Amino acid sequence: MNDTPVGDEPDPSPAVPERLSQIHEFLLFCDHYKRIERRNSLTDGSRRENDAEHTWHMALYALLLKDEIGADVDIAHVLAMILTHDLVEIHAGDTFAYDTAGREGQAAREEEAATQLFGMLPDDLRDRVWSWWREFESGDTAEARFARALDRLQAFGQNVRSGGLDHRENGVSRTMTFGRMRPARQADEAIRLLVDRLYAEADRQPGYWLPDGKP
Amino acid sequence: MNDTPVGDEPDPSPAVPERLSQIHEFLLFCDHYKRIERRNSLTDGSRRENDAEHTWHMALYALLLKDEIGADVDIAHVLAMILTHDLVEIHAGDTFAYDTAGREGQAAREEEAATQLFGMLPDDLRDRVWSWWREFESGDTAEARFARALDRLQAFGQNVRSGGLDHRENGVSRTMTFGRMRPARQADEAIRLLVDRLYAEADRQPGYWLPDGKP
Repeated sequence: MNDTPVGDEPDPSPAVPERLSQIHEFLLFCDHYKRIERRNSLTDGSRRENDAEHTWHMALYALLLKDEIGADVDIAHVLAMILTHDLVEIHAGDTFAYDTAGREGQAAREEEAATQLFGMLPDDLRDRVWSWWREFESGDTAEARFARALDRLQAFGQNVRSGGLDHRENGVSRTMTFGRMRPARQADEAIRLLVDRLYAEADRQPGYWLPDGKP
Repeated sequence: MNDTPVGDEPDPSPAVPERLSQIHEFLLFCDHYKRIERRNSLTDGSRRENDAEHTWHMALYALLLKDEIGADVDIAHVLAMILTHDLVEIHAGDTFAYDTAGREGQAAREEEAATQLFGMLPDDLRDRVWSWWREFESGDTAEARFARALDRLQAFGQNVRSGGLDHRENGVSRTMTFGRMRPARQADEAIRLLVDRLYAEADRQPGYWLPDGKP
């Protein structure tokens, strides 16, 4: 923090280091994240949510559930992964979880998007963001498993609280959700309880679930 | 993490501890945060941004600027404050930075909102979220000063990149922004450089600023 007083009138040509300008431009560009629409709705069903909203919500889940799970996780690391986990969608777009055809080219599309997007940053930060993203994608650490489980839990909560609108509109039956929710339910007992709590809530609503095989 | 295998079929009546249900309900309720509209726009000027988008963006700023500032901050703590800093607006609404009348009752409105909202959580978590919010509001620690500076920097970036639309629509002149930007510019040299970089960008655009005294 500064020791010299700073006047109110801004410096007309501030000597901003190239590194700092690069980070700033990246941050300003990431505003696009707010325009990437996901398949799930707000809980009042009024509109779909976007990546920025989903990501903030996941981060709040992490903050408030970290001490409820069995594993001891580094929350700063979890949050770093969460905050950047879908950034590549700025270029690659959101791929719907149940869109098998769309998911085929997804990895290549996202790798290219990462090169383009993270490449805006100074090399060290580019590598750091890239490694958070890779770790999240791989799900190999306790932190990544927790973050991935929250990705599923948050989306499922949005679906169930909006009355299953998105499940039905997207032709997703109850059985179809099992594969999607498996990693979340297997990651941790507390998360399994919350996922099952949501299933119980959905199951109580007549007509919530599409019949199997009739998408 | 579990040692026993978990089948795909959810438990029809999971034994969810009351504490966990409370946290879950709080998290689901916080979906409302995505519907609190702010006064500043997305950078393409297409619409106003909401609290969830603003908060995710601020958190990303923190993550990528933490090693660029002079102070050594605990990033987990910074992120905890940022992720929860405007939650009270779910009940109290967004108070426009330049709305002097609106700001008068703001503190009391927000304190009441905090009681209602944070009170949904188990006591220990209620107290923790409350203390993050209080610390952010007071701006007394290096972490809070950094978080508060980012609050201003992010909003100013949105305003400038959207061509000053919000400054003009809200009757905000260049001089009027000085008081608002002062804590950000005084908090840290790197942040001052980025704020001044945005002023320089705004100043280059003819007609960006409203004349003083003619809101």
